Amino acid sequence: MLSVSPSPRSFLAVRHICHHHVRTRRPLLLLSAPRRAFINTPRRNLRAIDLSEKHLANMKVNGGRLMEELHRTCAFGTGQRWGEATTDTGMSRLSLTDSDKQVRDWFVDATRALGCHTTVDQMGNIFAVRRGRRDGPATFAGSHLDTQPAGGRYDGILGVLAGVEMLRTLVDNDVETEYPVGVVNWTNEEGARFPISMVSSGVWAGVIPLERAHNLQEVGRGTATMKSELERIGYLGTTPASHEAMPMAAHFELHIEQGPKLEATEQKIGVVQGVQGYRWFTVDVRGRESHSGTTDLANRADALLTASKLILHSHRLAARHDALATTGILTLSPGSVNTVPGSVRFSLDIRSPDEARLQLLDDTIRQHFAAIARGGDEEANVFADADAVRGLPCDVSITEDSRSQVLKFDAAAVAAVRKTAERVDAVGGRVIDMTSGAGHDSVYASVRCPTAMVFVPSRDGISHNPREWTSAEDCALGAQVLMGAVLEWDRSRAAAAIGGDGAGSN
Amino acid sequence: MLSVSPSPRSFLAVRHICHHHVRTRRPLLLLSAPRRAFINTPRRNLRAIDLSEKHLANMKVNGGRLMEELHRTCAFGTGQRWGEATTDTGMSRLSLTDSDKQVRDWFVDATRALGCHTTVDQMGNIFAVRRGRRDGPATFAGSHLDTQPAGGRYDGILGVLAGVEMLRTLVDNDVETEYPVGVVNWTNEEGARFPISMVSSGVWAGVIPLERAHNLQEVGRGTATMKSELERIGYLGTTPASHEAMPMAAHFELHIEQGPKLEATEQKIGVVQGVQGYRWFTVDVRGRESHSGTTDLANRADALLTASKLILHSHRLAARHDALATTGILTLSPGSVNTVPGSVRFSLDIRSPDEARLQLLDDTIRQHFAAIARGGDEEANVFADADAVRGLPCDVSITEDSRSQVLKFDAAAVAAVRKTAERVDAVGGRVIDMTSGAGHDSVYASVRCPTAMVFVPSRDGISHNPREWTSAEDCALGAQVLMGAVLEWDRSRAAAAIGGDGAGSN
Repeated sequence: MLSVSPSPRSFLAVRHICHHHVRTRRPLLLLSAPRRAFINTPRRNLRAIDLSEKHLANMKVNGGRLMEELHRTCAFGTGQRWGEATTDTGMSRLSLTDSDKQVRDWFVDATRALGCHTTVDQMGNIFAVRRGRRDGPATFAGSHLDTQPAGGRYDGILGVLAGVEMLRTLVDNDVETEYPVGVVNWTNEEGARFPISMVSSGVWAGVIPLERAHNLQEVGRGTATMKSELERIGYLGTTPASHEAMPMAAHFELHIEQGPKLEATEQKIGVVQGVQGYRWFTVDVRGRESHSGTTDLANRADALLTASKLILHSHRLAARHDALATTGILTLSPGSVNTVPGSVRFSLDIRSPDEARLQLLDDTIRQHFAAIARGGDEEANVFADADAVRGLPCDVSITEDSRSQVLKFDAAAVAAVRKTAERVDAVGGRVIDMTSGAGHDSVYASVRCPTAMVFVPSRDGISHNPREWTSAEDCALGAQVLMGAVLEWDRSRAAAAIGGDGAGSN
Repeated sequence: MLSVSPSPRSFLAVRHICHHHVRTRRPLLLLSAPRRAFINTPRRNLRAIDLSEKHLANMKVNGGRLMEELHRTCAFGTGQRWGEATTDTGMSRLSLTDSDKQVRDWFVDATRALGCHTTVDQMGNIFAVRRGRRDGPATFAGSHLDTQPAGGRYDGILGVLAGVEMLRTLVDNDVETEYPVGVVNWTNEEGARFPISMVSSGVWAGVIPLERAHNLQEVGRGTATMKSELERIGYLGTTPASHEAMPMAAHFELHIEQGPKLEATEQKIGVVQGVQGYRWFTVDVRGRESHSGTTDLANRADALLTASKLILHSHRLAARHDALATTGILTLSPGSVNTVPGSVRFSLDIRSPDEARLQLLDDTIRQHFAAIARGGDEEANVFADADAVRGLPCDVSITEDSRSQVLKFDAAAVAAVRKTAERVDAVGGRVIDMTSGAGHDSVYASVRCPTAMVFVPSRDGISHNPREWTSAEDCALGAQVLMGAVLEWDRSRAAAAIGGDGAGSN
């Protein structure tokens, strides 16, 4: 059931592509903590595989240190202030900006200081790997350090920081895993600056062509591409962005829920079963510019009036199909108070946990949008034109920019999360199964390796907002479950390998 | 009936503020046309006041020269191409940009070459004045050289260029007016770059405070102000921008109709009786940013969805009140595909030829906008929410940025236009009375002097669009009527003055 054993050849591939930083062959755990007295004395560290359930339960992440490090690194790209406390600000750390470079540099330094080897691939994904007793692909904890332009301190950031805290905890406890474990920071997960979300895990998974990703232009009026910005900030690696060059044994992701369910039901840990599907579109409406004072309503081809109808109608159709529809970007031309807009471009994001329903919504939107823009008498226009003057027709075109299918995570990986969550005393059994409303890098990771996610509560369900907030206690619980799931996976691999070697195990 | 005689003191004021270019005291008409053989010989030119009706009718503007000059100066700020011919492009000459500076420099050079004295005031308004036989405020032809970002070659431009053609025709025919005549180029008439339209004639009229105008910031993300841009391009004059410093005997403006009526009724000249009123607002909608995948429809305070409802509803209310409503600018924040917008700002322009109806529309919009944003069950929400999920309330605020009252032009000035239009053979009596849908600098000019406007047809009624087009024949007819009205006014002034001097006249 588990696909944990890479061929020796693929592991060699991983070795060959280690170019970005010189691979240190020093023993691990050489850091300066006082407890490491016999630094030059060969010694056996604790093997994760030998840890008892009780020992595992007692090996705790340091929640205080996790939060301190999280807030410290949020100095890179600090956003809007919303409260009085020092940390009461949001984040504005768009992918591949100067502040993203700063936090990347921190990530590389921090994981190297913990004895990890770091690799940067052609999409700027950073893989920090700590050696195990055996060679093989690492079991990864992963998420992203980029944020929305008006985002918070937890979305993505918590997942990466909890991964680093996992590494620190293993180092502190002298625990040696059977296989390597690692932390990955994926580039431009948000899709906020370069308009495909999870684009770099998508390239890694072989789903999105490298060239398409490299040529993505930043939204707005800038002309920078992902490639030019990767180059500019020094994170354009030469390692292929590919699951073949950098295979993973498994991918676990801790994330805030970004919705209200855990809080509302007083649960602490969500065991994510899968992710709802979504499709992103660019909608172009073309009318005709005209003077606002001399063109009567009947003689206008008003692209913004039409866009307003389309946005309202997409919302109405989403409600009918028990789905979601959102327009987050809208630009218009020419943009003058007394000129009827001649063209409008807007984004449309539709989502559903059911693929067939999503397809039906997609089809219906295409039909109705065309009918509304044309100004026909179809049902779609009844609401839009009620009691108003109908103008001249506009043209509308809809381009699909990206899609993410409805997804079910690997059953064994999900089971590892649940088992761990149930084992953590402080969680107290407050564990529920959930479906993720948002896309995550785990979507693409799951294409190539067993993948699962851990959710922790979001206050008021608020996310993509400076006020996004999760308590320090919940962050620590989530980090504990994340580390537990990674170790659980490592132990299972070892057991399977021993089984596979015919050596037997209990 | 006519207020044509300034006090000697006010004329002195005009003389004193002539600072920008050295006032040349050379005789007029010194240019190099071959007909001016006796250049140093004192001679009597033709007095406009002595011209017969027939002579006046025969003195024709040069339509070919007018169009050649118009298209030549449209090289400054050429816009979007829409056809194959060299001149088949629109204009994009926003006020006080480099291209606006270029056309201003041309205007100053061209009018000085015709013997005019030019004065630049504190708003960058340029007054080019040709001496008459007597001193006194000039009778002006005026309009503007700035355009919309995606504008055409005629709006405003035709009016100024026809003024220059008038000066050339007077020079060519050695006609000397009784009082000075002039051409004025008003700054930022469009309000497209600095968001108060006709702002500089407004300052001249004493309606808009100079400081407010100077501090106007350009729309979009720039930080330039009118004052900083006037300074930058060298058109910040020291002459007060005031009807006291630069009085006008009358203001005549030739303009394209910008609507379909003349063309549809096969008329050639519109004698403009007045201008419909308008009000410009900035509408701010504040909701809450949230994640598009994890926030269900009921838990969203979606500022763009609310703005869409408001825009649609403004259109519906305008239809009910036989008025116009237009949103030409819309910006939102934070602007990410998968974030529900937390705030939206949009412009709203409402117009009506009836002041009471305009006020009622204004009041109704304020009431209904608040109700829609609140999400109440009022009638205003019936259409907006039909068959959809109602989200959380948003806040809405409405700020009035400028207004222009419903206006009736001076009866004598209007009569001068009609008399002239009826006299031009090529017009063939195709003259109708009209109301202007758009605001023009003539609105503010009319506050301080007798004012009237001449309209010529706009193909398909299209304006504020690169395809805006008026035939060369119609441009020439308009210029002919413009010159005729200015001369008619000059002759009336002279007759009134003679009457006033007790000298009598026929």
